[in-house]
Amino acid sequence: MLFPSRLIEEAVSEIAKLPGIGKKTAMRLALHLIKQDKSYTSSLTLALDNLRNNITYCLDCNNISDSDRCQICQSAMRDRTLVCVVEDSRDVIALENTGQYKGLYHVLGGVISPMQGLGPEELNIKSLMDRVEAGSIKEIILALSPTMEGDTTSFYLYKKLKDKPLKISSLARGVPIGGELEYADEVTLGRSIVTRTSVQFD
Amino acid sequence: MLFPSRLIEEAVSEIAKLPGIGKKTAMRLALHLIKQDKSYTSSLTLALDNLRNNITYCLDCNNISDSDRCQICQSAMRDRTLVCVVEDSRDVIALENTGQYKGLYHVLGGVISPMQGLGPEELNIKSLMDRVEAGSIKEIILALSPTMEGDTTSFYLYKKLKDKPLKISSLARGVPIGGELEYADEVTLGRSIVTRTSVQFD
Repeated sequence: MLFPSRLIEEAVSEIAKLPGIGKKTAMRLALHLIKQDKSYTSSLTLALDNLRNNITYCLDCNNISDSDRCQICQSAMRDRTLVCVVEDSRDVIALENTGQYKGLYHVLGGVISPMQGLGPEELNIKSLMDRVEAGSIKEIILALSPTMEGDTTSFYLYKKLKDKPLKISSLARGVPIGGELEYADEVTLGRSIVTRTSVQFD
Repeated sequence: MLFPSRLIEEAVSEIAKLPGIGKKTAMRLALHLIKQDKSYTSSLTLALDNLRNNITYCLDCNNISDSDRCQICQSAMRDRTLVCVVEDSRDVIALENTGQYKGLYHVLGGVISPMQGLGPEELNIKSLMDRVEAGSIKEIILALSPTMEGDTTSFYLYKKLKDKPLKISSLARGVPIGGELEYADEVTLGRSIVTRTSVQFD
């Protein structure tokens, strides 16, 4: 691609490093910025710099946070006996958006994946065990993705936690709500009939 | 959408103002930046600030440029008797990428569009007429999009230019190269048979 200006070329090459954004989209964004008021670009870059330089991780749960303790860990409304273990902060956001969970979280920062060189030592498992040792947790929910790496990590955590005096649970698996049976994959459908639940209509 | 941090919320709301990027993609980009080295965010924001604050427009052709005269207008390799009139800088990039054109450009900055309140006075038409008056131009190529607004603008320019001592041409219209006839739209196909060209295979 030929560039009409060195400034555009540099901006496009930086923007195109973002995931899911290629050179053509980067060029479109750069030309869009040029057409907008200067104040927009400056507030965009200020927000990005602020984000990157000031963001930190919660010392308790390792979730992304503005301060040493995240809003969830600070909240007095949360059930401190319940901890949901997730892969990363995106999962916390997804679960929070459901509005159905009132416990705390623990962000592992990944799952065990020998292919990517990620072993148990690279994840925030020690800090989870420390929280368990502190004694106030009554239930751990393993909410990792149902992939091979996620299941391996769940199994690893289960083995480390099973002798502790707490309940270990996982997310319910089954046919998605609103999904049609004929489009459900075989493994999910098979598992959902094996783990069927009793029904009572009042 | 719930945000785990005010910094993320601000960054997401700024990123989501970009065209074609919604809140979910903005969140994905913000979380991506957090995971990368700080130097990446700083070089991205530096490139964007540099772009927005230092970019300027060529005084001759109105193309985006790093200095008062764009690289194309400065080049000694260009045919200065030939000027291609386009809607915006993206069209210059598209034509330059073909490598088939060696003349100069004139960027109108839009097309006549009463719906968007764009009349001839809002476009860079006076500067085009000034270039024509200067006398060295022998051919003007009208390379505007074949839309109603583009055709209106071409017709307006044609009327202003037709009594000047220069040739007026437009891009060839026809079946795209590599396109299959059965998928070509009726207007293009009809026009391409009316304006058929003679063939000679050697």
